[in-house]
Amino acid sequence: MVIAVLREREVGERRVSLVPESVGRLVKAGHRVLVETGAGAGCDITDQAYQEAGAELLPDRRAIAAAADIVLTIRHLTDGQDPIWEGIRPGTVLVGMYQPLSHSVQTFENWAHKGLTTFSLDALPRISRAQSMDVLSSMSTIAGYRAVTVAAERLRKFFPMLMTAAGTIPPAKVLVLGAGVAGLQAIATAHRLGAMVQAFDTRAAAREQVESLGATFLSLDVQTAQTQDGYATAIAEDQHQRELALLAEPVKNADVVITTAQIPGKPAPILITREMVLSMRPGSVIVDLAGESGGNTEVSQAGEEVDVNGVRVIAPVNIPSDLPLNASQLYSRNVTAFLQHLEREGLAFTETTHACQISSTDEIIQRTLVTHEGTIRSQAVLDRLPSRGAENVATAPVR
Amino acid sequence: MVIAVLREREVGERRVSLVPESVGRLVKAGHRVLVETGAGAGCDITDQAYQEAGAELLPDRRAIAAAADIVLTIRHLTDGQDPIWEGIRPGTVLVGMYQPLSHSVQTFENWAHKGLTTFSLDALPRISRAQSMDVLSSMSTIAGYRAVTVAAERLRKFFPMLMTAAGTIPPAKVLVLGAGVAGLQAIATAHRLGAMVQAFDTRAAAREQVESLGATFLSLDVQTAQTQDGYATAIAEDQHQRELALLAEPVKNADVVITTAQIPGKPAPILITREMVLSMRPGSVIVDLAGESGGNTEVSQAGEEVDVNGVRVIAPVNIPSDLPLNASQLYSRNVTAFLQHLEREGLAFTETTHACQISSTDEIIQRTLVTHEGTIRSQAVLDRLPSRGAENVATAPVR
Repeated sequence: MVIAVLREREVGERRVSLVPESVGRLVKAGHRVLVETGAGAGCDITDQAYQEAGAELLPDRRAIAAAADIVLTIRHLTDGQDPIWEGIRPGTVLVGMYQPLSHSVQTFENWAHKGLTTFSLDALPRISRAQSMDVLSSMSTIAGYRAVTVAAERLRKFFPMLMTAAGTIPPAKVLVLGAGVAGLQAIATAHRLGAMVQAFDTRAAAREQVESLGATFLSLDVQTAQTQDGYATAIAEDQHQRELALLAEPVKNADVVITTAQIPGKPAPILITREMVLSMRPGSVIVDLAGESGGNTEVSQAGEEVDVNGVRVIAPVNIPSDLPLNASQLYSRNVTAFLQHLEREGLAFTETTHACQISSTDEIIQRTLVTHEGTIRSQAVLDRLPSRGAENVATAPVR
Repeated sequence: MVIAVLREREVGERRVSLVPESVGRLVKAGHRVLVETGAGAGCDITDQAYQEAGAELLPDRRAIAAAADIVLTIRHLTDGQDPIWEGIRPGTVLVGMYQPLSHSVQTFENWAHKGLTTFSLDALPRISRAQSMDVLSSMSTIAGYRAVTVAAERLRKFFPMLMTAAGTIPPAKVLVLGAGVAGLQAIATAHRLGAMVQAFDTRAAAREQVESLGATFLSLDVQTAQTQDGYATAIAEDQHQRELALLAEPVKNADVVITTAQIPGKPAPILITREMVLSMRPGSVIVDLAGESGGNTEVSQAGEEVDVNGVRVIAPVNIPSDLPLNASQLYSRNVTAFLQHLEREGLAFTETTHACQISSTDEIIQRTLVTHEGTIRSQAVLDRLPSRGAENVATAPVR
């Protein structure tokens, strides 16, 4: 098959969907890999490195799209404005992180209309078989690490306890809210750097993982909430008020708070009110990893660093792009594992019409498939269609 | 005695010479402590915190200086422009970090002329008795830690090895040049964060300390060089060329280089040429802790971040001020230990003329004393007087 790697065009996006290591692996397995010139520039991968791995470098996005069976991206392509739309053939497969829970349904309708078969890796089920493809976990790992290095650089204090001939300086107190993949990585990194770490999660199941990383688990008596896939769900408003009340003291005493609470497809829950920020010591730091979905604090501004009475509240966006090479390496391995899975599940193209054929009932395929054979397949997108009347029959799920 | 704490006035200086904890200790020991209003603002210590510790807050520098027996600062006071010069009495003791090896001798001549007794804590001998007063070690500890947190924030890669379901990302390679107090702290911090750490020092004696911190010691066969006090000395030019040649490969392979090589009173040695910087991978980071004394690389600009072909070379100035509270805590404990030492050694003031009396032959006193009884006592300053002829008889050392 012909696999195409496009240069990401979104402002500030430094990642690339496939690194040379994976290109080599795919070429060895008999595929052709086309790479757009400069695709790796954001993470310091040269065109030459791709060539040496066996890729064909092409400057023309339209030509790449026209020749490809499978097009890899990380982010969405710009609707309509991208030259790939002039070249892309019906039946072409698109693989990326396309946010079926929140991205404009118009985009997905366009894809169905163009006859594209599209897979969104951020919709993978959290089952052990899918772990090697789990891009959300990969990106959350990056974000959790990054939150701590940003906090350590911003905090005007030592993280570790410092013992000198003149006496001892106590370690910094780091509080991590949300003990998912990002939270656990933040806990591990802060603990490594020598901070005293506390962590909170509404899921009681998180206790063991938190404690195994050397942190103390904040035992707050609120209703635990977890989906079958291990994601947190929204909790009731009275529970939320109790949560805020119980977090007040730990937040006040923290030097650093890292918040990671996100609910897929929904605005992030507020865990820290403005009042709670004001209760913190000047010089303290909050890193809000939920900035892109509205933030976990009342004062967070996505992409900004806000100073509230001397407390610095940082809500970075697209954090994986801050470590673009590592993020690309992980993403690339995830997407390669996914491509291998598609092959195993019998993905093929008809010779004459280039129609994509995939008849698998496999859970991974079913959950990630967004559009196929002219229809929308993602339940998350279907649920969000403005009207579900007769005119949408063509986009009804076939599974 | 009346001990005065002045607000530091240098731009970017956030430290304070005495923190409330030490104020409490000195007040309990029977001293009066006067603190200039806002002295702790740079490190978020309130006037109230000083008051609660027993200090008297005064807004007027002139009045504080006039009432003080001992004036504490960290940096130099501005010659002539500071209102304290109108108030300060002959015999008053000044304690700070005054750089007798490099600061303008005119300042010290002025002090002698004013009849001040001045002690420079950066001239302390490196003997075990003096460890609790060792401000240079304290500030180097801060700098070494800070270098790593800055590098981790700037590097676009993970420091630790990362093991995920999709595979492993190798740890970052950190190279530390100079294994003094700052270098050792940098090694410890980078190792903590999970990096693979190599370290180099011209003193073979550093090997054991480096290895005990989990780093590998770069065994470069150059002439080892160390003063009696454990400081590095300049090495001969041919040795220096060999050093550069031997460092070429480790520098090229490093993700992060932290340089800490300083020679007291001399420009920092160049350990990394421009060519060596250009040999590094784009995205790599150099943190040059010798920026203030000229830098350890050919491209460093003090206080700037320079981009050389994608390699970021950061040469921060006054790093302790980046962690002003911790730096102040350590400095404060050091200076308190020094004040206690002065007392033990019999420092006193005559009642009628406020003349400072200190007749100790103690090494700590002798080495830190810069001016006393109208004469310059610091050998480092005397050696730098423009002419050492008859007109300088009055400033000859009495010891």
